[in-house]
Amino acid sequence: MTVLILTSAQDVTADMVVAELHERGVPLVRLDPADLPGGADLSAEYVSGDFHCYLSSEGRMAGSGALRSVWVRRPGEPAAHAPEASAWLTAETAQALYGVLYATTARWMNHPREAARARLKPWQLRVAHHSGFAVPPTLVTTFPRVAEEFAARHGPVVVKSLSGPPRTDPPVALPTTLVEPGTDFSGVAAGPTLLQRLVAKRADVRLTCVGGRMFAARKAAAEDQVDGRFGETGHRWEPVAVPDRVARPVREYMDLAGLAYAAFDFAEDAEGVWWFLECNQGGQFGFVELETGLPIAASVAEWLGAPPGAGALAR
Amino acid sequence: MTVLILTSAQDVTADMVVAELHERGVPLVRLDPADLPGGADLSAEYVSGDFHCYLSSEGRMAGSGALRSVWVRRPGEPAAHAPEASAWLTAETAQALYGVLYATTARWMNHPREAARARLKPWQLRVAHHSGFAVPPTLVTTFPRVAEEFAARHGPVVVKSLSGPPRTDPPVALPTTLVEPGTDFSGVAAGPTLLQRLVAKRADVRLTCVGGRMFAARKAAAEDQVDGRFGETGHRWEPVAVPDRVARPVREYMDLAGLAYAAFDFAEDAEGVWWFLECNQGGQFGFVELETGLPIAASVAEWLGAPPGAGALAR
Repeated sequence: MTVLILTSAQDVTADMVVAELHERGVPLVRLDPADLPGGADLSAEYVSGDFHCYLSSEGRMAGSGALRSVWVRRPGEPAAHAPEASAWLTAETAQALYGVLYATTARWMNHPREAARARLKPWQLRVAHHSGFAVPPTLVTTFPRVAEEFAARHGPVVVKSLSGPPRTDPPVALPTTLVEPGTDFSGVAAGPTLLQRLVAKRADVRLTCVGGRMFAARKAAAEDQVDGRFGETGHRWEPVAVPDRVARPVREYMDLAGLAYAAFDFAEDAEGVWWFLECNQGGQFGFVELETGLPIAASVAEWLGAPPGAGALAR
Repeated sequence: MTVLILTSAQDVTADMVVAELHERGVPLVRLDPADLPGGADLSAEYVSGDFHCYLSSEGRMAGSGALRSVWVRRPGEPAAHAPEASAWLTAETAQALYGVLYATTARWMNHPREAARARLKPWQLRVAHHSGFAVPPTLVTTFPRVAEEFAARHGPVVVKSLSGPPRTDPPVALPTTLVEPGTDFSGVAAGPTLLQRLVAKRADVRLTCVGGRMFAARKAAAEDQVDGRFGETGHRWEPVAVPDRVARPVREYMDLAGLAYAAFDFAEDAEGVWWFLECNQGGQFGFVELETGLPIAASVAEWLGAPPGAGALAR
């Protein structure tokens, strides 16, 4: 029973998990969809109700019947490395690869369907509320007047991107930013804007959930720091216990979202409440593991290598 | 309770359904995501566990609490018509619009999640087998030798695109094509290729399924005609009864795929067997209705305007 890892050759975080799988003697195929066709191959046959498929990459072969799990890490765009790359070849190859993989009964970390939905921030906020997290009041709007009233009622507020920074080369940072008093909100009409009540925080918390296991790390915040991802604070990530009042909503959220892996970001306030900021279904864990020693890679390998349960074709 | 229709202004098939909804007195908002922001507006507020959202377009407003159903027809790319259109504004606007809509409990025809999966042809074949349809032997491969052996074993075979024709301007047709004896299969290595046993057919059948209702139309095939979508045959679409042995698999497929609407294409052979060719979750129905008089638009309007059932937030 083989583990399939969809990621690029440059992905060093995947290397950590590959090492753990090797240690456990679990066979694996590592495949970058960008290498298909040319560097990798695929075949699937549907005859008389039977379905057989083979994937081969780097000289290793996996059949669909023997596919234990699929880990979607940082897959390249299908056919991106093909000698005759084109948008159409990418569409054809994506259909072939994902269409065939969707038809298997392998377990996914995470299934692209759940991943796509889990990326939608407005959906995240609703599910976070449902799950029982503390969520700061939030607004998404194209109405300047509504934005102004929200800021007046809930301020101080921060503004953040819904989809992350623009994909430019070189990449640009787009930190969460405090909205200054007296701000002119007319620009809100030019694009949907996300405003959120500022959480006066004493620490950032990153909670990584792998299957049912949770690994939390805490980093004390510098005074007046708004976005924990930017700026040196002199503090480091330290392991921290997960309070019960957070563990329950995490389980509920993972279940509602159908995720096997997720990285939650919280802001810890002066009373110790962990406020839900976002849940990144593909969030990095390498930096947390390196600073804290939390065994996240081993836990991912364990999940991927676990004996197959009752896989379901659809739903 | 309002029906939301996501489509472009040019969509005349939507006009047919809009007329049916007007006749039934069902309020609706028609919105092209390309017009957001600028021509349409959106606002969603998450405060203390509550969630309120508003969409406005063409002077009409719908709140999330009053959203009965969403019909995804031919929506434009979010923000495509914005004065300062950009890939980033499209990403931000898609997050805002679909993220907010995913957070409602409206019924979807079809939900973008199910739609995306249902487009994958290799997945379709597997689900079609599961559902009990007759499916011609099919191969998807990048191995020339495997393609050659398949053609020798199951020939005559046809080759068809997995993802449809390339998106060029002007558009090109890419009909399903007979593979001639003695064909050189080495090109298969350059891109995943779909081969399928040719069904010697006497007719094409288009079955449109709307909720639980089925509308089938049949068009006699010209001799040696491979792709029913191309070429004048002198025959017209005629309504035809749906045999029980087809109705059952259709229901099963719709259920497994989580679809509220789909257009199935079958090839009818000399024995009267309907062979599953594909299922298009967004297939057109206007041409069938115009030629046959089958009341598909009315049926879509009925489904969209039905009183809301117990909507579920997730899964």
